[in-house]
Amino acid sequence: MTSATPILLTPGPLTTSQRTRSAMLTDWGSWDDGFNALTASVCGRLLAIANGTGSHVCVPLQGSGTFAVEAAIGTFVPRDGKVLVLVNGAYGKRLAKICAAMGHDHTVYETADDVPTTPEAVDGLLAADRAITHVGLIHCETSTGILNPLPEIAAVVARHGRGLIVDAMSSFGALPIDAGTVPFEALIAASGKCLEGVPGMGFVIAKADALAKAEGNSPSLALDLHDQHVYMRRTGQWRFTPPTHVVAALHEALLQYEDEGGLPARHAKYARNCEVLIRGMERLGLRSFLPARIQAPIIVTFHAPADPKYRFADFYAAVRERGFILYPGKLTQVETFRVGCIGHVESADMERAVEAVADAFRALSITTL
Amino acid sequence: MTSATPILLTPGPLTTSQRTRSAMLTDWGSWDDGFNALTASVCGRLLAIANGTGSHVCVPLQGSGTFAVEAAIGTFVPRDGKVLVLVNGAYGKRLAKICAAMGHDHTVYETADDVPTTPEAVDGLLAADRAITHVGLIHCETSTGILNPLPEIAAVVARHGRGLIVDAMSSFGALPIDAGTVPFEALIAASGKCLEGVPGMGFVIAKADALAKAEGNSPSLALDLHDQHVYMRRTGQWRFTPPTHVVAALHEALLQYEDEGGLPARHAKYARNCEVLIRGMERLGLRSFLPARIQAPIIVTFHAPADPKYRFADFYAAVRERGFILYPGKLTQVETFRVGCIGHVESADMERAVEAVADAFRALSITTL
Ligand SMILES: Cc1ncc(COP(=O)(O)O)c(C=O)c1O
Ligand SMILES: Cc1ncc(COP(=O)(O)O)c(C=O)c1O
Repeated sequence: MTSATPILLTPGPLTTSQRTRSAMLTDWGSWDDGFNALTASVCGRLLAIANGTGSHVCVPLQGSGTFAVEAAIGTFVPRDGKVLVLVNGAYGKRLAKICAAMGHDHTVYETADDVPTTPEAVDGLLAADRAITHVGLIHCETSTGILNPLPEIAAVVARHGRGLIVDAMSSFGALPIDAGTVPFEALIAASGKCLEGVPGMGFVIAKADALAKAEGNSPSLALDLHDQHVYMRRTGQWRFTPPTHVVAALHEALLQYEDEGGLPARHAKYARNCEVLIRGMERLGLRSFLPARIQAPIIVTFHAPADPKYRFADFYAAVRERGFILYPGKLTQVETFRVGCIGHVESADMERAVEAVADAFRALSITTL
Repeated sequence: MTSATPILLTPGPLTTSQRTRSAMLTDWGSWDDGFNALTASVCGRLLAIANGTGSHVCVPLQGSGTFAVEAAIGTFVPRDGKVLVLVNGAYGKRLAKICAAMGHDHTVYETADDVPTTPEAVDGLLAADRAITHVGLIHCETSTGILNPLPEIAAVVARHGRGLIVDAMSSFGALPIDAGTVPFEALIAASGKCLEGVPGMGFVIAKADALAKAEGNSPSLALDLHDQHVYMRRTGQWRFTPPTHVVAALHEALLQYEDEGGLPARHAKYARNCEVLIRGMERLGLRSFLPARIQAPIIVTFHAPADPKYRFADFYAAVRERGFILYPGKLTQVETFRVGCIGHVESADMERAVEAVADAFRALSITTL
């Protein structure tokens, strides 16, 4: 942490360590063995985090997380398939929009922003519609921070013999996901989230046999995960120019992740950040939108103060001046703002963020209590 | 240049300056005004390089260059359009493969690897097939280094009232392209080529009125340039998480580009690199594949030595040990290797590269003269 650059309390890009960023000071040849080893090391480590070594493969993809989500839909869902999209926020809606853009038959099951999808609902929907081949689920819906019950829903989808595609963008690496016991065809995440790398690549943890069957599905060359995987297995290289510096940064971030104790330690750090944040904001009179039971320790949505003088833009600017970058709310019905708990930040940073928020409200003469 | 890391004589990723890489030591919030200003500055500068300010817009896109090529095809070609793909190397073939994956009607006109497409041929093809709506052209075909006559072909395509999509990945910023006199709908390049940024984003210089008409064409959400542009114009932000560090590096690279004298200076530097390289290799008895007349000063293809002891892998390793990373050939009929002339390297580096090559051949007991 330097005082010159603000701390990002946003759900990616987020604050990374100096060590991670310094890994970008070297140029790598994309055809070179040294870089191929870096890619292989990254993929192996990501697979191990998901406990998918042997049964699954890790397919990295250039671009932002959305590119990897679209690639997973395009690669795993046959052109005559049908997707049930489970929605309780903006990223679920985006998954449905991806299906629509690609011309995939799909149906949306939507619950309110503060209501997790239940396995019972999914059971009923799958029983009622035999045409559904795949289910799309957002693990942690970052637009509020709500956690959907992945293992329970995965079990239901598997029981019905359908394929599950999980957007675990904002949870991977922090919340446990065991590919050995949670059945899915594809699980998607990205470099710049809980692994604390920089943004620029996504990756898909894919069930090996499901990926093998997906040849020829993709209506895209760039986003064809089957093609990317086959080429990479044969050559050790990415099909198209990899974001070399981003890969190097992710590799360095993964080494730190492991040094610090892996998933349990990352989870504990974020849970502490989240708790300190919520308790601190409560002291200021700011209520979180979700009940604790369904709140993932990734990002917290807070109700904006009722004071009519409150405007997010002013509040954002005042907190930024004090060294922290917050995130706007994504709800249409209620005025909210969001604070991320993830990144190279600790509970002491969260304490200071709460102080910065308090100070900003004082400076703006906004009453919160 | 440090002696610890090898110099990349590859056509991207390439050797970047310390100043460019150091720009990645800061984390940026993707929602922050500071970052939005960076994006706007990058786009404005790219547009100015193409002399497209006012008439054209610059749409950046996450991912490698191929992602931007596919995005341009998907966005500009209507679903019932037909593409004439002009091929004289691997990147032309890839453009045809993209059309095939997307299910676009297309036809391929192929010339040999060392034969540029002529405007006369394009004229005949367009006259003969009224169904063709778009022409896809590779400006500098990096698989050999051959230069296709962009202005002349663009004039023919415009005369026939068809749209031109130009892959200028390896030429943009080094070879002059004047959007004011060369008509095209879309021209594609990327961060990690002649602008000497790091890889991780592409961009499309698009004719503003053609882009406006392209709404709803794209069969992809992630690769929809119309959607990306409309969102960015409205909010100043990228639709999906931008590769913040890559954008910051490109911005810094563009400032250096301008400081050093812009396109004429970049062109002159690469032309010098190319000349020193070809002359030096000739002294060693290594002939370049292309005649000077059609050789772009971007990357040079050399015939491998006739000595039966030559194996690219050994040669590559020996040159790498001596501090330079070369590139394999991409021709199927003739044994070749390639040496890039682009990146943060100067003629003195090229002299040293030639010495390293000579030394490698001596060490491998390979006769070249
Ligand atoms: C759950 C979820 N899905 C998808 C995305 C999209 O990722 P990106 O912005 O990298 O495209 C995000 C980004 O925050 C996310 O949190
Ligand atoms: C002419 C040309 N087109 C397309 C590409 C593909 O770009 P990328 O490898 O970034 O996908 C390249 C890469 O070198 C190129 O030289």
